Amino acid sequence: MAKKMETRPASGTRDFLPADVARRQRVTRVVEDVYRSYGFLPLETPALERLETLLGRYGDEGDQLVYKILHRGQPLVDGIREASAHLETEGGIVRGRSGETAPGAERMLADIGLRYDLTVPLARVVAEYQGKLPMPFKRFQIQPVWRADSPGRGRFREFWQCDVDVVGSPSEVVEMELCAAVSEVLERLGFPKFQLLINHRKLLSAIVETCGIQKELEGAAIVAIDKLDKVPADAVRKEMLGKGVSESGAERLLGLIGEKPSLDLLAKKLEGSEAGRDAVRSVKRVLELAEETRAGAHLEFEPSLARGLGYYTGNIFEIKVSDLAGSLGGGGRYDSLIGSFSGRDVPACGFSLGLERILVVMDDRNMFDAKEKPFDVALGAAREEDLRQVVRLSAQLRAKGLAVDLSPAPLKPSKLRKTADDRHVPVAVWVEEGKIGLWRKSTGGIETLDEAGLREAFGL
Amino acid sequence: MAKKMETRPASGTRDFLPADVARRQRVTRVVEDVYRSYGFLPLETPALERLETLLGRYGDEGDQLVYKILHRGQPLVDGIREASAHLETEGGIVRGRSGETAPGAERMLADIGLRYDLTVPLARVVAEYQGKLPMPFKRFQIQPVWRADSPGRGRFREFWQCDVDVVGSPSEVVEMELCAAVSEVLERLGFPKFQLLINHRKLLSAIVETCGIQKELEGAAIVAIDKLDKVPADAVRKEMLGKGVSESGAERLLGLIGEKPSLDLLAKKLEGSEAGRDAVRSVKRVLELAEETRAGAHLEFEPSLARGLGYYTGNIFEIKVSDLAGSLGGGGRYDSLIGSFSGRDVPACGFSLGLERILVVMDDRNMFDAKEKPFDVALGAAREEDLRQVVRLSAQLRAKGLAVDLSPAPLKPSKLRKTADDRHVPVAVWVEEGKIGLWRKSTGGIETLDEAGLREAFGL
Repeated sequence: MAKKMETRPASGTRDFLPADVARRQRVTRVVEDVYRSYGFLPLETPALERLETLLGRYGDEGDQLVYKILHRGQPLVDGIREASAHLETEGGIVRGRSGETAPGAERMLADIGLRYDLTVPLARVVAEYQGKLPMPFKRFQIQPVWRADSPGRGRFREFWQCDVDVVGSPSEVVEMELCAAVSEVLERLGFPKFQLLINHRKLLSAIVETCGIQKELEGAAIVAIDKLDKVPADAVRKEMLGKGVSESGAERLLGLIGEKPSLDLLAKKLEGSEAGRDAVRSVKRVLELAEETRAGAHLEFEPSLARGLGYYTGNIFEIKVSDLAGSLGGGGRYDSLIGSFSGRDVPACGFSLGLERILVVMDDRNMFDAKEKPFDVALGAAREEDLRQVVRLSAQLRAKGLAVDLSPAPLKPSKLRKTADDRHVPVAVWVEEGKIGLWRKSTGGIETLDEAGLREAFGL
Repeated sequence: MAKKMETRPASGTRDFLPADVARRQRVTRVVEDVYRSYGFLPLETPALERLETLLGRYGDEGDQLVYKILHRGQPLVDGIREASAHLETEGGIVRGRSGETAPGAERMLADIGLRYDLTVPLARVVAEYQGKLPMPFKRFQIQPVWRADSPGRGRFREFWQCDVDVVGSPSEVVEMELCAAVSEVLERLGFPKFQLLINHRKLLSAIVETCGIQKELEGAAIVAIDKLDKVPADAVRKEMLGKGVSESGAERLLGLIGEKPSLDLLAKKLEGSEAGRDAVRSVKRVLELAEETRAGAHLEFEPSLARGLGYYTGNIFEIKVSDLAGSLGGGGRYDSLIGSFSGRDVPACGFSLGLERILVVMDDRNMFDAKEKPFDVALGAAREEDLRQVVRLSAQLRAKGLAVDLSPAPLKPSKLRKTADDRHVPVAVWVEEGKIGLWRKSTGGIETLDEAGLREAFGL
């Protein structure tokens, strides 16, 4: 027999034992139920995607975090020779953050990789099945994604996203529905208080412009401003100056954002910017429509919200709860991503919930029932000769819709009761010399019955 | 804007659009419901596993089909140099089937890979969480697996397995429960007729031995016999002779298996073999126990069933339907696999259903309802000014548990009805100049209502 092997799950991944799966399903079923009630339909895409689909979408850092699948056979032999020659000359090889010279060689050894998020696959699907999908296409998707990140507390290499998107409509009704659905998910999960922050990418651009910051520094300024809820304003100012923003520009931007301007105030300040005025109108329309829904109580305009610098082009969102530094999820409108696949822009807007983030908070707050029953009835035979009768009873109880765990080997009724008690099973049933015993966890009482009595006890 | 990219899913993988997901869920939910009713609990394991966990379990061909994840950073640089040197000398490099020289180099470029089946991860989990899992540990697992196989009709690189296993008991009650659960799954899915074939690996061994075939040719003889339901007996004979089985041995084996011997007849013929007698007793016990369950009508002893030569050590099973060449699933007892991880043998037995196989047959037989409704109500506003009222109605209808699809942009009621009709949506509701319209697909009739009337129509 071999010596003990390493049996822990691979670094950054997790095994989900039955109690873990129960918690995760508790959340994903609420997500699915709510999204279906809003008319969203499920989509599933493969774990494997072409590297040409994945790379260049998530920034340089993201590209490095995409898991790549090793070529096989002759392409691998060719790839090794090419990569090796490349390494010798270092020609064209991109240096990684720590100076290693591998990234450029990766493409010679792989052409498929693992799904990195659920938005890029959606964009690929919309481009591929044009004309076959109902438009607007409203889909939800709950699947794992993989990132070759350094594992840490709450940060995994395999984790789940719960995405919901509407493709094909520029209307603010879309934003409103997404906010309402996400709010209903969180309320049903038992989150009484959370903030659903909203801002608009073009409003941010207009604000930066009106403060006299050059267009090419807009990104740097916005990234800095996004940190205002985490670091002091002084650190944000320093970051901007470091990136080349002028002192007067940084001052005006911090002043404007720092006073938490209302939409009306911003509308006035941005009178000269058509894009700015249009962005204010759009945010106001979302807020107005949401008043009729669950989102109304949670939506809040937050002028410093930036959501990184990805593919967003319009309204952006983020969910905050008081006891989590990061967000439970976020999203926004991205009207140009699909066009990068199909050559034709299609408006789209989505929201992504992080399953692990939600679970962390629910665990911290003890929002799960620790005593969930694994099944309804623990069933056993005292002796080998009682087994056939027990098998017959199991079929009867299961036909009634009960989840019944049948002990494969004869065991003492006291042992059966003890195990049932420990595992929070409400009822134990056994056969001993042809007589049926019934124990209920709620009372601790034991009855002796015949088969007719048992059927009666279970309403069979 | 970029030119059109390749947007088909990667070779051997599939996108599941909403109608596909509905069919797949129709099957997996029955599987899950039935397995839960038998007291099985869900387990989920990571897609990523260490290569040392995966390799050496599935035979040489299997090892080659494991997807390997490319190293990154410095390990990749080192791996490329090592693999390149290795290629130059070809020292220690295993040649693949088509003569390519890559497989030996793969291990220098990767140390994790993608899950290849659900049994090996279960064995790893049992070894890792010894003492933390209830014993016997009864788990089901419905997850994708990946194999770098040549894609073909019904053969994919990413496909789903539905596994159910009992770990920790040598009792035939386990086999009986697995057969009963699998039978109930197929019956509930709408398969009235199928055969659940049973045999025993040690019975096969004893039969081969009693025919005078040497131990070292047992594997070859069994692999040949397994083909008796697909090719003529003469081809099977030729295969055996080709592998070195004596003519008299092949003749006796074909004669014995060919007469489809009963268990009683085999018991007589194998009187001298303790293992053979014990195997007969074990199969008989499963058949006897199963009489009380759903499996009774389907179980059938089949002395030629072999289930390859994997890790099986006892009873083996396979499900046959008349209109599928292969099987819908199979399984068996494997009492030594867990020991290869933990150093301590633990008895185990399991059954695996192939989701794609089941779907292929159900599709061919038109067992799915082609007109499944995507949601309950299609809701829309005729004019922008009607939108707020429509949003309010959507919240009321959803609160009642209805799945409501709200059109984000105003549209003509006739367009809304047409789309609802085409998509098999039973009801359309719209607001036009403050008045509510209601259309039912069943009658084609249109009513005009006020809000009170609508609430009444839906019993709100």
